[in-house]
Amino acid sequence: MRVRAREMGIEIGSMKPGRYNAITDVRGVAVGHSTIIEGEGPLIVGEGPVRAGVTAILPRQAGIYEEKVRAAAYPYNAYGKAVGLLQVMHMGVIETPILLTDTLNTWRVADALIDYMYEVLGVEATSINPVVGETNGSYLNDSVGRHVGKEHVYEALDEAFSPSGTGPVEEGNVGGGTPMSGFEFKGGIGTSSRVTPEFTLGVLVQVNFGRREDLRIDGVPVGKELADVKPRKAQKSGSVIVVVATDLALSSRQLWKVARRAILGVARTGSYGSVHSGDFVIAFSTSEKDVEPLAEGGEDRKQSSSKKHGLDESYLNLVYRATVEATEEAVINALFKAETMIGRDYNTRVAIPLDRVREIMSRYGRL
Amino acid sequence: MRVRAREMGIEIGSMKPGRYNAITDVRGVAVGHSTIIEGEGPLIVGEGPVRAGVTAILPRQAGIYEEKVRAAAYPYNAYGKAVGLLQVMHMGVIETPILLTDTLNTWRVADALIDYMYEVLGVEATSINPVVGETNGSYLNDSVGRHVGKEHVYEALDEAFSPSGTGPVEEGNVGGGTPMSGFEFKGGIGTSSRVTPEFTLGVLVQVNFGRREDLRIDGVPVGKELADVKPRKAQKSGSVIVVVATDLALSSRQLWKVARRAILGVARTGSYGSVHSGDFVIAFSTSEKDVEPLAEGGEDRKQSSSKKHGLDESYLNLVYRATVEATEEAVINALFKAETMIGRDYNTRVAIPLDRVREIMSRYGRL
Amino acid sequence: MRVRAREMGIEIGSMKPGRYNAITDVRGVAVGHSTIIEGEGPLIVGEGPVRAGVTAILPRQAGIYEEKVRAAAYPYNAYGKAVGLLQVMHMGVIETPILLTDTLNTWRVADALIDYMYEVLGVEATSINPVVGETNGSYLNDSVGRHVGKEHVYEALDEAFSPSGTGPVEEGNVGGGTPMSGFEFKGGIGTSSRVTPEFTLGVLVQVNFGRREDLRIDGVPVGKELADVKPRKAQKSGSVIVVVATDLALSSRQLWKVARRAILGVARTGSYGSVHSGDFVIAFSTSEKDVEPLAEGGEDRKQSSSKKHGLDESYLNLVYRATVEATEEAVINALFKAETMIGRDYNTRVAIPLDRVREIMSRYGRL
Amino acid sequence: MRVRAREMGIEIGSMKPGRYNAITDVRGVAVGHSTIIEGEGPLIVGEGPVRAGVTAILPRQAGIYEEKVRAAAYPYNAYGKAVGLLQVMHMGVIETPILLTDTLNTWRVADALIDYMYEVLGVEATSINPVVGETNGSYLNDSVGRHVGKEHVYEALDEAFSPSGTGPVEEGNVGGGTPMSGFEFKGGIGTSSRVTPEFTLGVLVQVNFGRREDLRIDGVPVGKELADVKPRKAQKSGSVIVVVATDLALSSRQLWKVARRAILGVARTGSYGSVHSGDFVIAFSTSEKDVEPLAEGGEDRKQSSSKKHGLDESYLNLVYRATVEATEEAVINALFKAETMIGRDYNTRVAIPLDRVREIMSRYGRL
Repeated sequence: MRVRAREMGIEIGSMKPGRYNAITDVRGVAVGHSTIIEGEGPLIVGEGPVRAGVTAILPRQAGIYEEKVRAAAYPYNAYGKAVGLLQVMHMGVIETPILLTDTLNTWRVADALIDYMYEVLGVEATSINPVVGETNGSYLNDSVGRHVGKEHVYEALDEAFSPSGTGPVEEGNVGGGTPMSGFEFKGGIGTSSRVTPEFTLGVLVQVNFGRREDLRIDGVPVGKELADVKPRKAQKSGSVIVVVATDLALSSRQLWKVARRAILGVARTGSYGSVHSGDFVIAFSTSEKDVEPLAEGGEDRKQSSSKKHGLDESYLNLVYRATVEATEEAVINALFKAETMIGRDYNTRVAIPLDRVREIMSRYGRL
Repeated sequence: MRVRAREMGIEIGSMKPGRYNAITDVRGVAVGHSTIIEGEGPLIVGEGPVRAGVTAILPRQAGIYEEKVRAAAYPYNAYGKAVGLLQVMHMGVIETPILLTDTLNTWRVADALIDYMYEVLGVEATSINPVVGETNGSYLNDSVGRHVGKEHVYEALDEAFSPSGTGPVEEGNVGGGTPMSGFEFKGGIGTSSRVTPEFTLGVLVQVNFGRREDLRIDGVPVGKELADVKPRKAQKSGSVIVVVATDLALSSRQLWKVARRAILGVARTGSYGSVHSGDFVIAFSTSEKDVEPLAEGGEDRKQSSSKKHGLDESYLNLVYRATVEATEEAVINALFKAETMIGRDYNTRVAIPLDRVREIMSRYGRL
Repeated sequence: MRVRAREMGIEIGSMKPGRYNAITDVRGVAVGHSTIIEGEGPLIVGEGPVRAGVTAILPRQAGIYEEKVRAAAYPYNAYGKAVGLLQVMHMGVIETPILLTDTLNTWRVADALIDYMYEVLGVEATSINPVVGETNGSYLNDSVGRHVGKEHVYEALDEAFSPSGTGPVEEGNVGGGTPMSGFEFKGGIGTSSRVTPEFTLGVLVQVNFGRREDLRIDGVPVGKELADVKPRKAQKSGSVIVVVATDLALSSRQLWKVARRAILGVARTGSYGSVHSGDFVIAFSTSEKDVEPLAEGGEDRKQSSSKKHGLDESYLNLVYRATVEATEEAVINALFKAETMIGRDYNTRVAIPLDRVREIMSRYGRL
Repeated sequence: MRVRAREMGIEIGSMKPGRYNAITDVRGVAVGHSTIIEGEGPLIVGEGPVRAGVTAILPRQAGIYEEKVRAAAYPYNAYGKAVGLLQVMHMGVIETPILLTDTLNTWRVADALIDYMYEVLGVEATSINPVVGETNGSYLNDSVGRHVGKEHVYEALDEAFSPSGTGPVEEGNVGGGTPMSGFEFKGGIGTSSRVTPEFTLGVLVQVNFGRREDLRIDGVPVGKELADVKPRKAQKSGSVIVVVATDLALSSRQLWKVARRAILGVARTGSYGSVHSGDFVIAFSTSEKDVEPLAEGGEDRKQSSSKKHGLDESYLNLVYRATVEATEEAVINALFKAETMIGRDYNTRVAIPLDRVREIMSRYGRL
């Protein structure tokens, strides 16, 4: 049976996860998936086999366009097709759900998101900036066939907008993560969160990166130990999309700094940021509070009489830590929850063998 | 009759234009338009009236994907939806035609471009990075209806790929520029070029920006002089897309610097880079030559024995000048060639009155 | 007699300047110069002739370090040595006076600024981020001799901190601008401002750029008309430093956007952003008010009940306009107020002949 | 006795180090230190105690200015004062030695470097772009006293220019690293390298970052295990400077990508990129070869007949791996080689206890 990292006893970092240990621990954030698994055998472009889907992340369930959330985007290695990020970087807000999918479906998924904004959400505007992230699932999927249609986008969004959207998040071979790989095992969607008295921060990742021998779980070289079950066909390239949500009132400048930290969490699992990767981070704050004045220029602005000299954004250090920890754990969760999948042309990605992981972690003094 | 700036005797700058005074003066570059003008009267979303289209710019007619061109992108004010630019910025190449259209059609146009890459060009790949620019034509067009379909994308591309694609370029109310405005006159597509013994550089713009009173033609405050025919309804916002092509062997780093100069040409026509603008520049080199070593690190690298001290990219200054001049002239050409258009809800943009422009330019000592 | 542009009747743009038409129209901003003009004849490195100096701009006269001002920096063409800008870009604040000088003095001027922060201002901290801009005055100055010492830094700062620091600003051959050139005429320091009921914005420039034939004054090709008095030795390269101050409560994100507009004003005077230029803009806000919530995410955040759809930073458009106008006028003021200077090796930069400018402007219908 | 990581049997990653396991394994690269350790007891600003210095890294020993090396800079968290990086980012070359020092000495060190360029290296130019990095050593050093003078800069440079400069590199409490801390132990200078048949890559770091409990050595949570010897006074903030050298012919664009990877190596040791950190990476190539054409646009440019579709910079993946591994090991070497130091006001940083580290690594199955 597939378990999450924490269920195996692996506790990444020192901070506490939230109720679901998911991005939905951030109040108001919702997630929905649409998963397409159809056909088997040789690839016939346009017919299948299909291993694809869409994952929808809502910064809020109500008034997404009208009450935009403060946001930032960070392209770490921009060999990728993500849509909408330049405007996010410039304006500092997100005004639509965030969708994740398989590379070549990116633009039709963006177009269907526009449909949804008008048809379902009733937005009135002549300008909407859809945000869509992607990784390349063509090892298992008929990617060129572009099988993700408007109906799948609507399904993922409908689920996210439903009451269950704010609950636990399904991981592994679901939604945009359906055909993805991780460290030459099966990858996909993973999530995790961290909670403090002051804030909650959640992360959702779409994992499609990594070479087997580089995999580290909480610092343990699990990948090297599992080199014996390495597939003959190496994972050629690979990308990761990270979405970070928090309820802390951060400015877009601060969210940009937070987004940059997510990559540190990815690094700890064994990423070198490969040449062919499209690694992007999107971070947003659900807070409707005005940004604290110390967000720009530090505590000094408030306490000039105290003649303090530093720029006191020190409280961000804990936010950075939460981001790194939750990202690292979300990546591991994606691997742990993904199940073996056979795709087009019988290409196969096996699930990481959890029994052996348990044994290795134990041998290295971690369990 | 509508004439181009130079036909009126206005010569922007000091350098010479090419044969067509168009981006197609750069050998191999081709342009095609698909223009949709249908219906009139009140706006019924999804029905019309339609004033839209697609403009296709080919960096080369053969082997676009297989022999990528070196390129750069520069977001000047990124309140825009342009697709594909982050990868261009990161990898330094363009691998598809560049399409320009009306905002809300951006993603379906990108998706149709993917179709074309597979169906018509026979590309074999699971990753393609389409490049699409946009400005917002909703003052005249049923933008929300998104009327630009696959057939229009194919039409524009087919025209660009045809023998006539490398010839003179139609300007004004064509292609992506169909519904656009400029300085509260009718705007649209414009182009211009500059030629030296060493290189040719061409610019194509999609003009949708500017307040009437700010319009300057070769430094003359024409906009103020034409304030009497200012429309009651001001142009709320506005954007410009600039595409720069050259046959000089430039590195993507250098093309990025060239792209930044295009905005100086836009500035000279009277832009302040408005808050609501999505102003992007895309620059590419058609040269298949390896980048000259002095492209990175200067002449010194070659002539160390001569103990030269500077980084000698001085030859770029002329490229910058060509870029600024051609961009300025392309914007004016867009205005000059555009004709009065009545769009949805009888919204009207009148063509700039050329007789009065001639009189003003003359009065200010320019003709 | 040297006059400013406006005294000749040249009114750039449509907005009104402040009392002094200077950066000091922004309440609290102060300026001081230290000018060194010593020796004549052949260059003897380390001895002279010296044509150099320092210009100090104070965002506020009291509590500069303790109450940092929100700020942004924009490197337009970064072949320059400006100190401190990366931290300004990252933190969004300035915590010292801004100094301008001749290239090779940059670091000793920065070091002397640190002295001043401790010795005169009594700052208590182990980290201070000095901000120093520079252009290259070696055509007239013994630049390699680095003659700007601690005493000159102190003199400029003392003047800025004195009551007269907030008054009219001396222009031309003063302070950091002492040896600089502009369009192959004598350049230097220039300033201008714009005032509205809501805000004041001021600009100070150190002009050291431009080719003769490119000079435009309010759009009139004055440089071409003055090509007959072009010096035999062309101005090889050239840079400009622009400092923008406003009392409007802008976030550092917004100030960054404002900084980008300054270059549009520079462009209108005839700059192509040459290869060898170090063109930097620094913008700051003197407002101690918290940043308006609409600074991040738009009016919507406040008025969600009104379901407004746009990001309403529209009020920034007027700030952009003020920036472009004041920058353009400041450049012209630098030229107009600078007097002919003979420097090292009898190198000479003549002052722009104002009588001829008057005649040209008149002939082109502007006076 | 202090040993390096590898001498204890800790082998970070899978690639082989060079002869010295140092940045000087890259042919031509040289290093020199000047170390100042004077006085003890209470801090008297301007008198001491002094714990400071300068480290000089030469990209080449001959013709540094005349034959500039291709380079890139990457500001990860730019709360720092590093000098010269904006021009490096813009031009893509370094033209001076790289110096590392204590924060407040940055500008006088830069000024002394200018002296050296003229006086010792005989450079003829009116524009030089010195590159200086810094971290804040004020916990142990009289930083405000700024004790690093021209003589120390010359000493470090002279050593680097001497024959021994290209040999083994001293680590720990030397040069710029003299007063620095790491994970609340004593930090300082560390270095490491990786060698393949195709290239050598070396890294030198100045370590001044990290919280005790976050320290990981090759993935083992050594910091938590050593929490019992945590100092009462926490390390408040902290920064790291990373210098990466390679003999592979990389373009500045590629070096920028390499520079970004160094941070992944830092992350693996336990960094969260703290709010108060000035984390910068500088990367350069010593190769005088022209940049391979595939550096810009991929293998396709060469092999268009083979109709390859990807951008083949795959060989960079090994460079990225070398960068991450060598950076991680260099940080650990800095800690291992640093000795306990008592500084101003008897502030003390103890050396990491290597016996306990050996025991912990062993217990976690690594030795």
